[in-house]
Amino acid sequence: MNAAVIGLGYVGLPLSIRLAQTGFGVLGIDKDQKKIELLGKNLLPFGLREPNLLSFFKQAQVSKNLKFTSTYEEIKDVDIIFISVDTPVEKRQPDIASLLAATKSIAKHLKKNQIIVIESTVAPKTTQDLIIPLLEKLSKLKLNRDFFVAVVPERIRPNYIFKQLTTLPRVIGVSDLRIKKELRIIYSKITTGKLNFTDLATAEVVKTVENAYRDVNIAFANEIALACEDLGVDVWKIRELVNKSPWRDMHKPGSGVGGHCIPKDPWLLASSVKKHQMRLIETARSINDNMPAHIFALAEEALKEKKIKIASANLAILGYAYVGNSDDTRNSPTESLIQILKNKKVKYKVHDPYVKDFSNHSVEMTAKGADVLIIMVNHDVYKKINYKKVAKVIKTKIIIDGRNLVPAELVRKLGFVYKGVGNTS
Amino acid sequence: MNAAVIGLGYVGLPLSIRLAQTGFGVLGIDKDQKKIELLGKNLLPFGLREPNLLSFFKQAQVSKNLKFTSTYEEIKDVDIIFISVDTPVEKRQPDIASLLAATKSIAKHLKKNQIIVIESTVAPKTTQDLIIPLLEKLSKLKLNRDFFVAVVPERIRPNYIFKQLTTLPRVIGVSDLRIKKELRIIYSKITTGKLNFTDLATAEVVKTVENAYRDVNIAFANEIALACEDLGVDVWKIRELVNKSPWRDMHKPGSGVGGHCIPKDPWLLASSVKKHQMRLIETARSINDNMPAHIFALAEEALKEKKIKIASANLAILGYAYVGNSDDTRNSPTESLIQILKNKKVKYKVHDPYVKDFSNHSVEMTAKGADVLIIMVNHDVYKKINYKKVAKVIKTKIIIDGRNLVPAELVRKLGFVYKGVGNTS
Repeated sequence: MNAAVIGLGYVGLPLSIRLAQTGFGVLGIDKDQKKIELLGKNLLPFGLREPNLLSFFKQAQVSKNLKFTSTYEEIKDVDIIFISVDTPVEKRQPDIASLLAATKSIAKHLKKNQIIVIESTVAPKTTQDLIIPLLEKLSKLKLNRDFFVAVVPERIRPNYIFKQLTTLPRVIGVSDLRIKKELRIIYSKITTGKLNFTDLATAEVVKTVENAYRDVNIAFANEIALACEDLGVDVWKIRELVNKSPWRDMHKPGSGVGGHCIPKDPWLLASSVKKHQMRLIETARSINDNMPAHIFALAEEALKEKKIKIASANLAILGYAYVGNSDDTRNSPTESLIQILKNKKVKYKVHDPYVKDFSNHSVEMTAKGADVLIIMVNHDVYKKINYKKVAKVIKTKIIIDGRNLVPAELVRKLGFVYKGVGNTS
Repeated sequence: MNAAVIGLGYVGLPLSIRLAQTGFGVLGIDKDQKKIELLGKNLLPFGLREPNLLSFFKQAQVSKNLKFTSTYEEIKDVDIIFISVDTPVEKRQPDIASLLAATKSIAKHLKKNQIIVIESTVAPKTTQDLIIPLLEKLSKLKLNRDFFVAVVPERIRPNYIFKQLTTLPRVIGVSDLRIKKELRIIYSKITTGKLNFTDLATAEVVKTVENAYRDVNIAFANEIALACEDLGVDVWKIRELVNKSPWRDMHKPGSGVGGHCIPKDPWLLASSVKKHQMRLIETARSINDNMPAHIFALAEEALKEKKIKIASANLAILGYAYVGNSDDTRNSPTESLIQILKNKKVKYKVHDPYVKDFSNHSVEMTAKGADVLIIMVNHDVYKKINYKKVAKVIKTKIIIDGRNLVPAELVRKLGFVYKGVGNTS
């Protein structure tokens, strides 16, 4: 069988590789000509730290099953078309420009009996209300007579892409039960997880609810962390004990929620609901978005204890990726923190071993002469920081720990003021 | 050993019985003279449907280890005093009248080396800031020299009281590590669950966070249910599929959140936090409190479809307890619904087989001549309703299902308009 994959990002590229691995002839399409050139040269445009991505990619390339292009003509020869383009949010509303562009390009070349699978996360009802009418209109073909549509939202996250792609259960919404058998065959090759068939809208809702669930539960942990700071108890001790009570799964508080899914999908869901305001989801978004500002407030507070004004302070920030051990910087909480610092004209340096602009100096070099060391990301390398060395080069001994990563007792013995999110006393 | 238990409600009475079972001499104290009289006659003042409560009570009585009184004099002879009085919330603030009264009465008779254990759920810091200073002031004794305090918040819920009391892990906050050994011996007799020792404030916070977690997660399920109604999908299908994704535990939506703990403990926590507003917790409370009004809105909508004005309609409401299979009516969502109906002058009948005022007629008698049948509580008996019989006696065939308890397909075949929370199409 032959497949086309539209959009070669964190979802589409691994999917293309996986399909090629399982014997598909894969046509990878991306509007970014530069990305296509890189891929044609066996080079990865992103995800260099992602386990298996590079090695699987090279293997798949060698097998000659993978072909990359930025044009759509050849999709007429494939059996199935996967859409995995970016579906961002702008001002709390879905920005479907890429999705519509891909849909239009597909429609122009659509052939009878093709199946279009939407792996991109979309606002509920988008497939039925926007994509299908557009496909029918431009192709002059009819859904469920001439072509078919499925909604199979991706379920992957950085650092675990191939593990999740190949093992997680999948929700498969179909426009017609007649394509169930074929999709079962195809997705059984992709994943060992169970396949759950349903309708298009249910599949769309499930995906956005999954991520809204995570966002709300992280916001709960963050709100409890703020409470703990006020009450003088340690949120990590609280979490440990709460989770010993049955049916509790309190998430981890932290310096903010980034990435491409969790900060965005709740808005995709909320934007689709007209009759009710999604108050809890909106409040959760606001709480999580505010965590970088809280990190700043903790730094300001600690500096005040040391009688240093924030305006004259130098901040050393560790971590720019949105998640530990990754180079993925999409919606990075550190980016938000830096925006605050810029607005307030506060001096800062950033270190991240995996992000190009911030990797050409060591942790100690970053801390040198600084008044605060702020840990934003739980990269494993930050768990091995030598605080004795840091103590020698830092100007003012203050640590703000956004990821419960610093040995608080140890650094306090070294004379540091230590403040962690949810653990300030 | 001898123990006193102050407050003989859903927590204190089972605790007294459990202590007596394990060989303690137990002095049960309650200000309610009538309750003391009933207990003295081997009669239960509440909880008649609670598994084992009556039988264990009678066994314990027979063993002569249990004694009930409404005065405090004899507590001078006990080794340990458990406080399990009611700690309600009034206008979002803790009402500590009962707690302070109990504390004062204890203080008057406090003896050296006694341990006071607070099983009541209290707002964080209450023990340190209010109870201990009051005990010291009135008794002229000193904490950790003359007497000791522990915070061991109860973890039980109706229908499962003895199961949870005797098996769940417990959090034990202590004023002094020297009482750890003794409390380990005592609580090891009460429960087979693990005992986790910590400080007083941490124990207080853990308990309120446990219940705030549940409230927020139920509110999330309720908000998603509202979204599903708007989007025309079934929240129960959504929940099933969301929970197949790893690390998701979406709770059940429903007609409201009642009982003595979940609607109250989030306010105990929120009231204790001064520096930050607990926005997520407050929003969750508001969403859950609004569910009875949403049930009303669904009824109104269904009646409108049948061209019946709510003002001329008769509503038949099934369930008055706050939770299935229980007679516990504390903070019952049905009570809130009835308040709405009273305000709007809507006619209604209520049925609950376990609640005195509503048990002297059958489901069919309740439905007879009604225009809407509303299921508020998931009593098992409501799962066996004969809808053919209901169809014959009801005037207008409308069912509003607040607990996903009605076989929707079946009742639709019988001609009913069916609307469930999160499942209206």
